[in-house]
Amino acid sequence: MYYQNPNIARLQRSKFHEARGEVLRLDMNESPEGLPEGFVERVKEKITPGLLASYPEKETLTALLAQQNKISERELSITAGSDEAMRLLFECFGEEGKEAVMAAPSFEMYRIYAEMTGMRRRTVEYEEDLTLSVPRLLKAIGPDTRLVILLNPNSPIGTEYREEEVRAVIQKARDRGAVVVVDEAYHGFSSGTFLPLIKEYENLLVLRTFSKLFAMAGLRVGYAAGNEKLISMLEKAQSTFNVNTVGLLFAQELLQDPDLLQRQRQLEKEGHAWLEKALRQDGYRVFSRAGNWLLFYPRRGSAEIVRRLKEKKIFIRDYQNGVLKGWLRVSTGGLETMQRFYAAFCEAEREE
Amino acid sequence: MYYQNPNIARLQRSKFHEARGEVLRLDMNESPEGLPEGFVERVKEKITPGLLASYPEKETLTALLAQQNKISERELSITAGSDEAMRLLFECFGEEGKEAVMAAPSFEMYRIYAEMTGMRRRTVEYEEDLTLSVPRLLKAIGPDTRLVILLNPNSPIGTEYREEEVRAVIQKARDRGAVVVVDEAYHGFSSGTFLPLIKEYENLLVLRTFSKLFAMAGLRVGYAAGNEKLISMLEKAQSTFNVNTVGLLFAQELLQDPDLLQRQRQLEKEGHAWLEKALRQDGYRVFSRAGNWLLFYPRRGSAEIVRRLKEKKIFIRDYQNGVLKGWLRVSTGGLETMQRFYAAFCEAEREE
Repeated sequence: MYYQNPNIARLQRSKFHEARGEVLRLDMNESPEGLPEGFVERVKEKITPGLLASYPEKETLTALLAQQNKISERELSITAGSDEAMRLLFECFGEEGKEAVMAAPSFEMYRIYAEMTGMRRRTVEYEEDLTLSVPRLLKAIGPDTRLVILLNPNSPIGTEYREEEVRAVIQKARDRGAVVVVDEAYHGFSSGTFLPLIKEYENLLVLRTFSKLFAMAGLRVGYAAGNEKLISMLEKAQSTFNVNTVGLLFAQELLQDPDLLQRQRQLEKEGHAWLEKALRQDGYRVFSRAGNWLLFYPRRGSAEIVRRLKEKKIFIRDYQNGVLKGWLRVSTGGLETMQRFYAAFCEAEREE
Repeated sequence: MYYQNPNIARLQRSKFHEARGEVLRLDMNESPEGLPEGFVERVKEKITPGLLASYPEKETLTALLAQQNKISERELSITAGSDEAMRLLFECFGEEGKEAVMAAPSFEMYRIYAEMTGMRRRTVEYEEDLTLSVPRLLKAIGPDTRLVILLNPNSPIGTEYREEEVRAVIQKARDRGAVVVVDEAYHGFSSGTFLPLIKEYENLLVLRTFSKLFAMAGLRVGYAAGNEKLISMLEKAQSTFNVNTVGLLFAQELLQDPDLLQRQRQLEKEGHAWLEKALRQDGYRVFSRAGNWLLFYPRRGSAEIVRRLKEKKIFIRDYQNGVLKGWLRVSTGGLETMQRFYAAFCEAEREE
């Protein structure tokens, strides 16, 4: 036999094995409509054999992102989705046997990477009213803490932290020698950003992705922003060619088209508002805060609704445990998509 | 301060900061011509907003690769270039403080990942005649060995291992509890493959990439083949969405067009043969074996030639240390590209 890293060997991973085919997938907070076809066609003209055959260069996108975020290029590292940034931060700043503090439930990959690194997870559960107690979060930060993970907005709940809360977490973590990660995957679907705080704190990393508002989940582009020293660690640990040339190209073009992003934002806002109103009018409990999704509580059992919608080729997400038990989560997109979803949902509730 | 993984903190990484612009880049063994434009245009038609907005699914490409390589889908894992496979195999099978055996010089990233994992490298230097002594390689495998890295063909030298040599390495490694990696990045530019041996040995991983013959370095697609147990470890350790949808699409289309790959192969073969002959006729020492590159020994100092060619916007590679000291490496492509390179090289040799 050969050596196997025991932290990896004992990992339980579920794989996505349901190919989507013609399915309307509202279970992963992708953009159901995607980018406008005209834009995609225009960018595609720049995809040449040479672009495909060349190892990627990140300088142009790095410069653009630094400029738009008003930070230096050395305070920023482009990653393969924010997912790669998560992996790297555990590899760089996670210490075996020590603790990572995070909310529960949270984005699944944080648990995976914590386990891969051999870290203990110290989780803070949401309250029954779906708020997260920041005093409890602060209390969880102790001498063994190496990483504190905040999602803002909190996925899958949608609540946002206030600035004084985030500052309190960063300061306490700093005193305890821990790095704080603010994952802003849903930036653009929320009210603000804590990215400017990287200028003030040496132990803060902010993660962004092009998978959500930018509708590029397939292209795997994201970035981390933080103090130069944190970023230089991530850059040391990452593969030289971690992001593909087509993803870099689309990201560059999108950043130079703020109107388009505004229209994407507006599209979701309209569909989101419509669905929320429809659900409330029909008497459903709805929990809708930031993010391109909403939570609602069906009359029928949530697993049964998911099953029936799957037969209609629509995927949404249910929860079997914890504070979200019985709730459903649906990704929100444009008006037509939401109307199609809601009609199918109403049938799923009614049918024998 | 916060915890920093000491293996990563002490890493020295050089970054590629020379953007290529209009440069003819023959220093990274990319395909200088890339894929035929007609093919690229045809595949681009399948790039839709939905493809870009959707998280990647690897099932189709996995099935195709398994079928073409006559292995099961569970003996194969798709990775972001073979680079991600290298990272994963160190994460999974590398043990801190133990040894990784490899040739020197070798592909740079193996050194990086060994250092990141905190492994000691046990290197076997090439002989003065640019051969690698397999008896010395076998002798380097000991009780502390966890990984043995073979590149076939050997980059940057180009020599290939014989089957009995590879079997001897795998068997000795197996007896010592080590995993053997055969990196076939230049598959298609060489005479054979050791991939079928994964059926016989539980400790063999074979890596492939779409960056070389397939001319898709920008799209970051590769794969690892090996025993189900090895592959399941890699799959546990990898990010769920590690490869982008456009890369998956191009890889699928290419695999279904064997004639096109044959033409790509022929294009390089012709240019390669022409350049080799031209260099020999002009009295240069040439070392040309497998792979889409060749080594030759200039009259002027190699660093000076590189500098002069850079002024002419052509990049090639020199070596400052070890057995390759004084040699130059140029990536080989089609006839016109090689003629353009050789004309510039001759000027660089002649000019004051």
